[in-house]
Amino acid sequence: MEFIKEPMAIENRSMEIIAPYLAKLSLNADEIKLYSRMIHASGDVGYADIIKIGGGSIEKMKTALRDGCSIYTDVEMVRTGINKKKLAFWGGEVICKIADSQIAVTAKAKGITRSMAAMRYFGKQLNGAIVAIGNAPTALFEVIRMMEEENIRPAAIIGTPVGFVGAAESKKALAECSLVPFITVEGTKGGSPIAASCVNAVMYMIDNSR
Amino acid sequence: MEFIKEPMAIENRSMEIIAPYLAKLSLNADEIKLYSRMIHASGDVGYADIIKIGGGSIEKMKTALRDGCSIYTDVEMVRTGINKKKLAFWGGEVICKIADSQIAVTAKAKGITRSMAAMRYFGKQLNGAIVAIGNAPTALFEVIRMMEEENIRPAAIIGTPVGFVGAAESKKALAECSLVPFITVEGTKGGSPIAASCVNAVMYMIDNSR
Repeated sequence: MEFIKEPMAIENRSMEIIAPYLAKLSLNADEIKLYSRMIHASGDVGYADIIKIGGGSIEKMKTALRDGCSIYTDVEMVRTGINKKKLAFWGGEVICKIADSQIAVTAKAKGITRSMAAMRYFGKQLNGAIVAIGNAPTALFEVIRMMEEENIRPAAIIGTPVGFVGAAESKKALAECSLVPFITVEGTKGGSPIAASCVNAVMYMIDNSR
Repeated sequence: MEFIKEPMAIENRSMEIIAPYLAKLSLNADEIKLYSRMIHASGDVGYADIIKIGGGSIEKMKTALRDGCSIYTDVEMVRTGINKKKLAFWGGEVICKIADSQIAVTAKAKGITRSMAAMRYFGKQLNGAIVAIGNAPTALFEVIRMMEEENIRPAAIIGTPVGFVGAAESKKALAECSLVPFITVEGTKGGSPIAASCVNAVMYMIDNSR
């Protein structure tokens, strides 16, 4: 069977196919790259209508990444999806504590999710960092609480938790809290590949590599 | 802010919310669990209309998993998303070679994707195994070729590659090849969490744990 087998040819052709779905929106060049990569990660052009960007998040993320900021994720799948070799070029690393045995003990004792316990554990480490939450609404709610009650200030938050219990509400709270630059989506859709795609998209913008 | 923080309560409530979207379909109890977990992973009830199951794949997967079969994935994100502790209970492990340096050399030399080169490398190891492809159409096309030309026979293939270049075509080819039990989705949607959710759903059916 004949099909395109060369990785960059596949990616470039994907971006060409996605482009017409973005034409109706008023996006700048960086936003087109971001939207395209999120749609590329989901296979769902419906994302064009639900992506929300605020607080100059793309530029703020570029600056933070160039300065070597680290990225804190809620789950291992987001960490896995981020291009860590690229991130390491500027000095950053991806940090996830959901599989940490002590976090599990804390979470069980408090009756909360492990990803939520992990965000609480990170505390002031999140100042100036990028937070990328692709799965757990509870983790996103917790970071918003930490910003409001403990004055924690990440450089930006990518919040694309997925599902039917708290996901839409947590993402709405992120978009409305006005304390931090953000990238999110409305409603129930989202997931780890979507969160990772946001980080990767901005990294590729910095050096115009993809 | 008030929200549900207890992991199993979140999951159970999610499944309750998803249930009405499946009522119009003629699904048995296991299929409902499978569909629910795929929708849970995507936050997208639209999956109810595009999921395709064939060849008795759920039962075939249960048997293979109980017998300790391993799971071969195209990308690390699928491996990350599979409940490996649960799989290890029956003796299986998850194998992914996309990050292998020798696979990268082969892929570059041949002008193909690394995940495709990895499937070719696995060869007869795929006999009796479960193949879970969540990202790369090229990997799925390659396994179909190996079945047709080299008589390779996995116990089942979960094929949910995502995107706009070859994904829909590769999934259609899987559903039509009639050589192997399969789980797939029509069209461009898919992704690593969807593939992982299929494996996890069937494992949880075996011991009725979730």
